Amino acid sequence: MKKHYMFTPGPTMVPPEVLMAEAAPMIHHRTPQFSQILCEATDALKELFGTARDVYVISGSGTAAMEAAIANTCSPGDKAVCVVGGKFGERWAELCKAYGCEVSVVETEWGSSPTVEEVRGALEAAGDARVLCVTHSETSTGALTDLEAMAALTCTSSTLLVVDSITGVGVHPVKMDQWGIDVVVSGSQKGLMMPPGLAFIAASERAWKAVEASTSPRYYLDLRAMKKNLAKKTTPYTPAVSLVRGLHKALEMMREEGLDSVYARHELMARAARGAAEALGLKLLAENPVNGVTTVCAPEGIDTGKLTKLTRDAYGITLAGGQGHLKGKIFRIGHMGYVSPEDMLVAVSAVERALKEMGYEFEFGAGVAAAQKVLFG
Amino acid sequence: MKKHYMFTPGPTMVPPEVLMAEAAPMIHHRTPQFSQILCEATDALKELFGTARDVYVISGSGTAAMEAAIANTCSPGDKAVCVVGGKFGERWAELCKAYGCEVSVVETEWGSSPTVEEVRGALEAAGDARVLCVTHSETSTGALTDLEAMAALTCTSSTLLVVDSITGVGVHPVKMDQWGIDVVVSGSQKGLMMPPGLAFIAASERAWKAVEASTSPRYYLDLRAMKKNLAKKTTPYTPAVSLVRGLHKALEMMREEGLDSVYARHELMARAARGAAEALGLKLLAENPVNGVTTVCAPEGIDTGKLTKLTRDAYGITLAGGQGHLKGKIFRIGHMGYVSPEDMLVAVSAVERALKEMGYEFEFGAGVAAAQKVLFG
Repeated sequence: MKKHYMFTPGPTMVPPEVLMAEAAPMIHHRTPQFSQILCEATDALKELFGTARDVYVISGSGTAAMEAAIANTCSPGDKAVCVVGGKFGERWAELCKAYGCEVSVVETEWGSSPTVEEVRGALEAAGDARVLCVTHSETSTGALTDLEAMAALTCTSSTLLVVDSITGVGVHPVKMDQWGIDVVVSGSQKGLMMPPGLAFIAASERAWKAVEASTSPRYYLDLRAMKKNLAKKTTPYTPAVSLVRGLHKALEMMREEGLDSVYARHELMARAARGAAEALGLKLLAENPVNGVTTVCAPEGIDTGKLTKLTRDAYGITLAGGQGHLKGKIFRIGHMGYVSPEDMLVAVSAVERALKEMGYEFEFGAGVAAAQKVLFG
Repeated sequence: MKKHYMFTPGPTMVPPEVLMAEAAPMIHHRTPQFSQILCEATDALKELFGTARDVYVISGSGTAAMEAAIANTCSPGDKAVCVVGGKFGERWAELCKAYGCEVSVVETEWGSSPTVEEVRGALEAAGDARVLCVTHSETSTGALTDLEAMAALTCTSSTLLVVDSITGVGVHPVKMDQWGIDVVVSGSQKGLMMPPGLAFIAASERAWKAVEASTSPRYYLDLRAMKKNLAKKTTPYTPAVSLVRGLHKALEMMREEGLDSVYARHELMARAARGAAEALGLKLLAENPVNGVTTVCAPEGIDTGKLTKLTRDAYGITLAGGQGHLKGKIFRIGHMGYVSPEDMLVAVSAVERALKEMGYEFEFGAGVAAAQKVLFG
């Protein structure tokens, strides 16, 4: 008997209650019944986004919502400043290039968070950037970006702050309106403890002016169609009905728990993972770490591709390795969404077993003991 | 106690086996386990598309796959000929316009199928169209397009035949390679008896040349990224994992039934619906009807918006009304995917009850009797 656990930074584990909501018999999307589910879900998303504005549900991956952000606000030739300190920052730059923007990249070392000074410098050098694209929680490195500080840079200029908070929303508080963020995008399979397949986007009043002005071609991801249809409590195209029902259930569970408790829970998991890593003599990659995933540098001589294959295939416990140039060098423990404190003992235990099997010398049990103290001490 | 039935032309009813497959605990998409599910599903889709070429799975609505077809093959200024005889034909024209194409529309009366002569004329008038966009099964009217005849028009020229077979695939045989179709798109929530949320696309060798040449911006829907990743048994972005598992199950069920039986089943349902309509003294809208949905003209004085609201709210049986200028004038009985012969009696029974309640005079029971004869006689 092998019980499977998934500690990946998306997809993440999904509560049976959510899976069951998705398995309910199909309903049609142009019905009062579906409209109610959709609108209750989008209302609940507003709280998570920290906005009074509408949040739109896109049937698609988080990348689809990122593309919607660019296609709707940028026109060919527009200047875009993209902060790149990992794989998802790179995606912003790729998207802006695909839409014909003149892209300036603020390169930060993978694991570092962007500083106000370097971003301000890039904005000043660009002159009149249409967008500043940042990654709230850079899943590939575990580094957190200070959104409030970034918003302070853009809110007095005509540059729109566009935020990938795919692994931020539901994990860290996001205060879109209060901080002055213009576009926030997120996805279902992270802090929202849903399967992948839904993405979310909200836009500020001034972002909407850019949406009206953008000349980029778009249809499926056209925010204007989403706005027009949500006003009628529906979506422009057939939505992923079963996933929207799952979303409704997941958001209900989060509301029952209370958002402050949800954020505190993620912080506790992160502290347990960090404490365990330290007790095992391992370094964290991120200086200013996120609460959704903990990125750990491998000890000398340990290939994390092998480590994660071992935990997955031999123990049934899936962790994540590194991406890009960090492949083989870091492993990542995802603890977003449906991860309990008890689950964290399981994750740390698997790391210990694999490290031991791969020849790393340490005090076996020190990791779970440290986690136990953080979690339940 | 009210048992709910859905006879809408998408979303359609979903077998419990498929719902249960989707409700299985989440797995990560970058694993051999998911790769196997994905590749078995895409292999099965090849049979349904009638192609030896790869079929790509997009997390999104059918419209996303339609947009992928245009964004990947057309560049601004290209000429597009779109056959428009209903709401989904209109979508082709809108998409081509959104991507800056010079669009010629072949307007056919709603309910009519396009003739070879009128399409040939439009192609000749356009001169060197990049694409001819047609709708295999026009869901808004129930009219069928002869794809083989359309392909005969394009296969000797440089024009690509782009087909929306969203309600065609899995209902009618599609022979993409044999007929010479260049791009086929489809969706999950129709003949494939899945929830909405996945779309599919395949492209011919010469379509791929257009994909490489297209200058339209695209990222999430970029076929080149899909091709590159499917070669590695994966997807460019996180796929809707649970829906792909449902797809795998649905395709397995269809293979067990046998594709010829699947097509014969749909034809039987359609004949039963048509026979019932005739027995009730009602006219069909489509001259050359599809097998996935039957469109019936309302008797004088009956508003089909009221009729479908009545069957849904009072009987728990969901039918579809008309769209566009047919709103209130037709009703549609969807019989795609997970609809049994017995279910057809239920659909026809609901139509009879509603018509009677709304004051239409006819021999009560004549419809179900006619259906019974077609189905089981």
